[in-house]
Parts: sequence; C-alpha cells; structure tokens
Amino acid sequence: MGTLTDDGLQVAVLAGLEEFWAEPRRWLAGERAIGQTEVILPLDDVELVPPVLPGAKVICIGLNYLKHLAEGPYASDGAPRHPTLFARWPSSLTVGGAGIPVPSDEAGVDWEGEVAAWVGETLVDATPEKALAAVVGYSVFNDVTSRRAQKLTSQWTLGKNGDRSGPLGPLVPAAEVGDLRDGLTVETRVNGTVVQQGRTDEMVYTVGDTLSLISRTLTLRPGDLLATGTPSGVGYTRTPPWLLRPGDEVEVEVERLGVLRNPIVANQARHKAPPSGASV
Amino acid sequence: MGTLTDDGLQVAVLAGLEEFWAEPRRWLAGERAIGQTEVILPLDDVELVPPVLPGAKVICIGLNYLKHLAEGPYASDGAPRHPTLFARWPSSLTVGGAGIPVPSDEAGVDWEGEVAAWVGETLVDATPEKALAAVVGYSVFNDVTSRRAQKLTSQWTLGKNGDRSGPLGPLVPAAEVGDLRDGLTVETRVNGTVVQQGRTDEMVYTVGDTLSLISRTLTLRPGDLLATGTPSGVGYTRTPPWLLRPGDEVEVEVERLGVLRNPIVANQARHKAPPSGASV
Repeated sequence: MGTLTDDGLQVAVLAGLEEFWAEPRRWLAGERAIGQTEVILPLDDVELVPPVLPGAKVICIGLNYLKHLAEGPYASDGAPRHPTLFARWPSSLTVGGAGIPVPSDEAGVDWEGEVAAWVGETLVDATPEKALAAVVGYSVFNDVTSRRAQKLTSQWTLGKNGDRSGPLGPLVPAAEVGDLRDGLTVETRVNGTVVQQGRTDEMVYTVGDTLSLISRTLTLRPGDLLATGTPSGVGYTRTPPWLLRPGDEVEVEVERLGVLRNPIVANQARHKAPPSGASV
Repeated sequence: MGTLTDDGLQVAVLAGLEEFWAEPRRWLAGERAIGQTEVILPLDDVELVPPVLPGAKVICIGLNYLKHLAEGPYASDGAPRHPTLFARWPSSLTVGGAGIPVPSDEAGVDWEGEVAAWVGETLVDATPEKALAAVVGYSVFNDVTSRRAQKLTSQWTLGKNGDRSGPLGPLVPAAEVGDLRDGLTVETRVNGTVVQQGRTDEMVYTVGDTLSLISRTLTLRPGDLLATGTPSGVGYTRTPPWLLRPGDEVEVEVERLGVLRNPIVANQARHKAPPSGASV
C-alpha cells in the first residue's frame, strides 16, 4: 500500500498488503511502524495493482438502483426483497489504465459504474450500525460485464469474472467520503459521452444493511469488498444495444472518489497478459 | 502439501502450497527438490487445511445431474443448455473432520456430495481436450448449502459461501482416478443413512467441456477448482424437508477418492472459530 504524493508523481510506501489489512485504521491514519523511514518511489517505477488480498471476498450487489432494475429483464419481478448478491474472485480485478479485454464470443463488454466499500473489521452476525462503522474506505469501481456469458444460465458468475474486468480506483478513507446517503454522483462516460448518471442515495440497500445480512451467513474480514450496484444506463438494454469494443475508453467518476479510466482491448490480450496483480 | 504415510499416522512434507501449484505434476510424481531431505511429521502435530491457494477460483456447477434438476424448483425449465456456474470463495472451504456451522437464520444446512477437479495448467480459450488434460487430480467435496440464504434472490452466492461450508478431501492424482465417465459412485450418508447415490457418468456437462467454456471468458490457473455438481437426494426438496442440524454427521464417499466426514455444529462456533485454513 502506498499513497500518492501531492504532485501525483511519486508513491510514498505505507505498508505491505497483509500488514495494511491487519490494522487498516492505523495505516489510514498515516501512522508509520516504529523505526520505519519513509520510502518514496517515482510513480513510473511502480506497477500498480488493486489493494486486495488474494483471499478477499468481493461481494457485489445487483439491481440496487430501481431505475437500473426497470431497464433490465428482471423488471417484471418488482424490487427484490433482499439484495441480489453475486461473487467476484479477486483475480478479476485490476486498476485504472489497464486494458480490459473483450473475451471470446462476446460482441463487446458492458459498463457498470459504481461505488465499492472496504470492510476493515471482522464481522459475524453484526448489526447494520456495527457493519457500517466497520467500513474504512470507498473506491470507484467498474463492474465490467460479459453479457453473453452472464446470461447463459440463471447464475451471473461467469460473465462477472472476465480477465481484468473489474477496475478499481484508489481507496479513499471513509472519513473523507462521509455518508453515501448524501447522494454522491456516479457518472460513467464512454469516449467522453455520459452514459450513466446516478446518485448513491438512490440505492435500495445500504452498505450497513447489506454487510449485516451477509455476516449472518459468512464471516466478513478486513480487506473484503462490497460493490454497491450500478445506476441505470447500461449498454445492453439500449435500442440498439451499445457495448464497449476494442479502442473504446470507459470512465467512471464518483464524487469525492475520483475518476477511473480504462481502455478496451481485444481478446488477444488475454493470451499474452501476465496474471492480474491481485493473483501475483 | 504433504502425503500421508502408508500407516496413516504421519505426514511426509512435499512442498509449500505456492511451490506445489507452480509445478503440480512434478510434485504429484513424487519428485523432491534437489538437496531436499524428507520431512515426516506425526499427523497429530499437523493442522490440516485444504490445498487451495487463497487466490484460487472455486467454480461450481449447479444442476449437472438430471435427477437432481428434476427434484428442485428449476425442473420446469428443462435441462439447462449450458452449465450453471456459481462461485465459492476459497475462504468457505475446509477439510474432513471440521465442524460445519449452521448459520444464523437457517433451520439447518443441506448436503451436496460431489467430485471436484483440480486444474493444473493455465487455460485460455482451451479446447475441451486440452482442458481435460490439464486436470491433475480430483477430490471428494461436500457443497454444503444454506438454503434460506441461497433462495433469498435469484443468485445463489450467499447460501453457497457459509463459513467452513465446503469440506474437501485429499487430492487424488488424476492418473489414479481415471475417467469420470467410468461412472464413479458418489454416495452421501447422514448419521449412517444413505441419502444420495449417483454415478459420475450421469453428469450432463463434462469437466473438459465446462473448463473449456469457462476459459473463453476467464483465464484458469493452476490450483483452480471445479466442483462438478451433486446427484439427486438433497434434503430441502424432501417431504418433509430434511436438513443437517448440530450433532449430525455427514459423510460423502466417492469411489477411488475416499470418504469425507464432517460433524455439524451450532452457529455459536462462528463466533469463536479462527479463520479457515485457506485464508490464513
């Protein structure tokens, strides 16, 4: 883990990933280990990877904005009575700037701009209040989806785990973000054109309620990640459908969290690319 | 990674987990690193954990036996035209002997005896033949399910990832197992009563075809795991339903792969247990 210097050209090293997630609040408060001197590296010399432990759980909410529900095939079911949770493996994650491949058999990939919340404490049977208080930060996230693979069967897993399909922005400490109920603007742009614009106060299921529900079945641990769902405006439900193709650029911008920008590349990139950072 | 000695009382150390999965065939062939002397430890001094890398993908097939499809709520949809894939995070896995908790709000948990296949090579856009040839071993698996959580929404993820809900037997090298199309018997017993009995040649989707399909969207890596689905006879579709409760013992036995036996414990165990081995 590191922090960008004010000029954006260097990285100040904070801690190893395991060390960071053992005590995230301490490191986010800027405390350095005893005797540790500050190490600063030129950004150009550093390969960025998402700050995700290989064994972390990446839990995603589907259908959390009513206007997004209304634009898709689940509209006739009405609002789900519980958050629709699906899984990503950390190996599907990447960072801003990385090329996102269009996998074999897909006409393109679809954008889903959203906010992800980082869990900083162990949660077992936690109340919504305790669960929300355990969130140590938020990041911009793009839940890029292979729609054909997603819709092959009832379960979305395959289409939600394409190689490098989940770019993630830097972790912004919760104290700097405040409450998602303030209504942060979530905007997605494709080649500069705005395609999604929502506000985080439109979410049906809050971060606290959802983490609480999850913790009644499985134990959440520091470094686990909750992706909170996307607003309306995805590509595949448009007439005609609009999917990202090689050469396109997709950007997600969330108020207080920054901008995440990724080019789209051809399937060929899957054949030569190294493993994503999360799995190295 | 280690192997049990013939008397079953000691463990011969083979390699570290990352070292093993970097060259699984070499280690399975029994080769030792140059200069490495054999280390043998008493089984009682060893804490067993599943041989799963924290960053591995655990991919599970639902509805892969037609009689199981017929007993559940998806029967009216007919046989799915593609394998229904869902995700487990490795942190949900455990080993034989470990107590499986019944999570909060569940009346019990359900059994799903099955066979899991271990991927030993990197697979991108692989043919079914190449994908099958990349399988280096098989294990007994019990895909223990929290049915209430599984059925909350369209996506099964939550109910398939309860703490210590996925016990896994030892890895048996593929060369000792042969072809699943031979029809290995898969049998599940609850407190000694047979509740499931199927044969692996009843599977609709083969391991090779399924891994090939997956590899067209995401890259499979050594150490990834495919759980091949369960035969008919699960508990929740019975009249009356039959679920595992604290004090019960569930066993899965697969021909050539061995027996996997686990006690069921109360939710209370989730509040005091350490992380499962896979996430340590």
